[in-house]
Amino acid sequence: MALNETHDPQLRSWVASANAADNDFPLQNLPFGVFRLGQGSADARGGVAIGDQILDLHAAAGSGAFAASVVGDDAARAVQAAGGATLNAFMAQGATAWSALRLALSRALREGGSQRGQLERCLVPQAAAQLLMPASVGDYTDFYCSIYHALAVGRQLRPDNPLLPNYKWMPIGYHGRSSSIIVSGQPFHRPHGQILPRGETTPRFSASRRMDYELELGVFIGSGNRLGESIALDRAEAHVFGLCLLNDWSARDIQGWEGQPLGPFLAKNFATTISAWLVTLEALEPYRCPWQRPQEDPAPMPYLTSEATRGRGAFDIELEVLLQTQSMRTQGQTPASIARSNYRHAYWTLAQMVAQHSVNGCNLQPGDLLGSGTLSGPDPAQAGSLLELSAGGRQALTLPNGEQRRFLEDEDEVTLRAWCEKPGARRIGFGAASGRLLPPNAA
Amino acid sequence: MALNETHDPQLRSWVASANAADNDFPLQNLPFGVFRLGQGSADARGGVAIGDQILDLHAAAGSGAFAASVVGDDAARAVQAAGGATLNAFMAQGATAWSALRLALSRALREGGSQRGQLERCLVPQAAAQLLMPASVGDYTDFYCSIYHALAVGRQLRPDNPLLPNYKWMPIGYHGRSSSIIVSGQPFHRPHGQILPRGETTPRFSASRRMDYELELGVFIGSGNRLGESIALDRAEAHVFGLCLLNDWSARDIQGWEGQPLGPFLAKNFATTISAWLVTLEALEPYRCPWQRPQEDPAPMPYLTSEATRGRGAFDIELEVLLQTQSMRTQGQTPASIARSNYRHAYWTLAQMVAQHSVNGCNLQPGDLLGSGTLSGPDPAQAGSLLELSAGGRQALTLPNGEQRRFLEDEDEVTLRAWCEKPGARRIGFGAASGRLLPPNAA
Repeated sequence: MALNETHDPQLRSWVASANAADNDFPLQNLPFGVFRLGQGSADARGGVAIGDQILDLHAAAGSGAFAASVVGDDAARAVQAAGGATLNAFMAQGATAWSALRLALSRALREGGSQRGQLERCLVPQAAAQLLMPASVGDYTDFYCSIYHALAVGRQLRPDNPLLPNYKWMPIGYHGRSSSIIVSGQPFHRPHGQILPRGETTPRFSASRRMDYELELGVFIGSGNRLGESIALDRAEAHVFGLCLLNDWSARDIQGWEGQPLGPFLAKNFATTISAWLVTLEALEPYRCPWQRPQEDPAPMPYLTSEATRGRGAFDIELEVLLQTQSMRTQGQTPASIARSNYRHAYWTLAQMVAQHSVNGCNLQPGDLLGSGTLSGPDPAQAGSLLELSAGGRQALTLPNGEQRRFLEDEDEVTLRAWCEKPGARRIGFGAASGRLLPPNAA
Repeated sequence: MALNETHDPQLRSWVASANAADNDFPLQNLPFGVFRLGQGSADARGGVAIGDQILDLHAAAGSGAFAASVVGDDAARAVQAAGGATLNAFMAQGATAWSALRLALSRALREGGSQRGQLERCLVPQAAAQLLMPASVGDYTDFYCSIYHALAVGRQLRPDNPLLPNYKWMPIGYHGRSSSIIVSGQPFHRPHGQILPRGETTPRFSASRRMDYELELGVFIGSGNRLGESIALDRAEAHVFGLCLLNDWSARDIQGWEGQPLGPFLAKNFATTISAWLVTLEALEPYRCPWQRPQEDPAPMPYLTSEATRGRGAFDIELEVLLQTQSMRTQGQTPASIARSNYRHAYWTLAQMVAQHSVNGCNLQPGDLLGSGTLSGPDPAQAGSLLELSAGGRQALTLPNGEQRRFLEDEDEVTLRAWCEKPGARRIGFGAASGRLLPPNAA
């Protein structure tokens, strides 16, 4: 997909807040989400973030601003679907529809756009809205795409054999839990479970004592494939609707005891937090970058290789983890940045995840979610989890206010952020994925 | 739940085929499912199997036979929900509703039932109907509840350490794929994937050469729990709507290469077959039996223990695997029985699976599906997979017609069956879960 007019960094919006330099949601972004007004209202509807506002797509569809005579059939049909209570129907319409609506939105919201009068009445301040899950997630799969994370964790578990032999041959993934995916801002409780204290042979029942986050990106599938058919690598990105932040909360002690032979289960499925706005691949187009791997590593098999992937299969997305403790909150201290990383370090690309997932004929569906895996970078300071930052809990991390953390404590709030910026392009951001760890419920 | 009038083995139905001795669906069973008439029709609806017929619950609800004045409010509300295109809404109504409708159905369909005139017009021959997925499955989790299966597979992988230390402490499970769950009768293709041939160090891309089935039962969750709250063991069965057969098709060569460190993924998610009729716990009530484990094994932790579970937590459900090859089919030979087992041998009960799954606050939802894991019994002939019957492919199984199998060949059809019978109770059955393995699609 070539750069088009929607990426022009000179474009400004008549929504003034969208033009601020450090704003996540300028005219060049236009991420989709679902929101409602007030806590009690049940009328969830799709919207687009623009500056500190949301364009209510249900209202916009009714305003006439996106009539087929104005924006064309594709965009007119798309805005009807995108205004619904979940984005699944819009996702299912496919890349042509997504692109048409994005172009229509860019034209309508830019300075001088002729639909301004109709659309001003469709704006809702983000501060007044409750952001909801953007889609109904049918299936959620988590991958393991950072070799730096795989190595760091592998060194703790298997010092003499940190990287398993399959790692460089294919993106490794496993199925996660859909029902407990929550949207940024929703707190959750520290889970109970069985743990095996170090040096003991009898497990005990306890609230987890080694609570962790994992810095990931989420990939929402737009259009799916039929059972028995696979998605070829060169078509894979056309099936991707957009990206969000994803925090794969992990109870390391539960994980250590339960994890063999079938993988993570209760250590992960109590909660997974995602950010509310889905940033489309079109918005990320200026931030593509080459996908590279060491020359000495095995060449991927043909179904995981294409020239297009190699040349521009990765994305330059800056990532950050912030932590705010209860003490920081009560003393009015802002969250502390504890790690930075970048998605371009991933060993496997987004398209390779999609191709791998469907190579056996597994059917992906609109609204399915893929996690990238913890996106640790090559530098130890770029670690995407406390497990890595604290070396398995052996060395405490000291926060700016002097507090220390090996794992998360009750009332800690973790916020993930992501953004893209470079000379010659407009900075865009992902908003945030925040979640606060509440004390355990009574067992 | 005590035995009630619906279990009386003397009861006969005015649907004559229901009274045949070897019939799976007598008046004492009344399993729920979803069907449609003809291939083209989109009007899926709930029904109850009775003999060789289906009582169309959508039509029955409209007939007046289940008016609140006749059957009470609970049953009247239940039949409305149960007639829908999936059973999810009926499942969500909870155990009181399920029980009320079951009693009303038993009374209406028995000999002398006053609603016969209205309901005769609501019968559809099973032979004329297409059976569909009974529910929309939000999340699917597969457990590993047979210690005989765990030991047999463990001996192949780790001869000196077949059973991992967590096995006797909790039901081990992992998340499966919802989108590729298919109903009995739907064929599927042999999957492609990466495999590592024995003795080699470089994987290759291939259609799987070690295709297998797994004999399991599926457990449909009826009413769910809220995120952060767990389901206590003594309440667990009240959340279970019913049981079906489940075939966890497995590509053993893909599984062997991908499985570490995160568990099964593409080796399983190309297809999972379930039977169409959900047999309720009430129907299974006469077939409860004590849950037992060796005295020397560790006592389960309190959250996995109760006197009720110990005394009657298991179910005496006989299981059978049948195989029909292409050659048998063309020569008019019936499927060959290749293994028999029984659910009573499971190391962990159905209630323990539910309690374990939610102990960390993970939310279960109406329509969620749990697999029991391969239900191998203590005798080697009771093995629930070819991996076990063929000792990892080392010794071929000889079929009655002289054909041999180490793993499945193209066009093989595997059928799982289950039934309950004992003196003093009416035999009930589960129908079948059948699936045929088609040749691989072009890669």
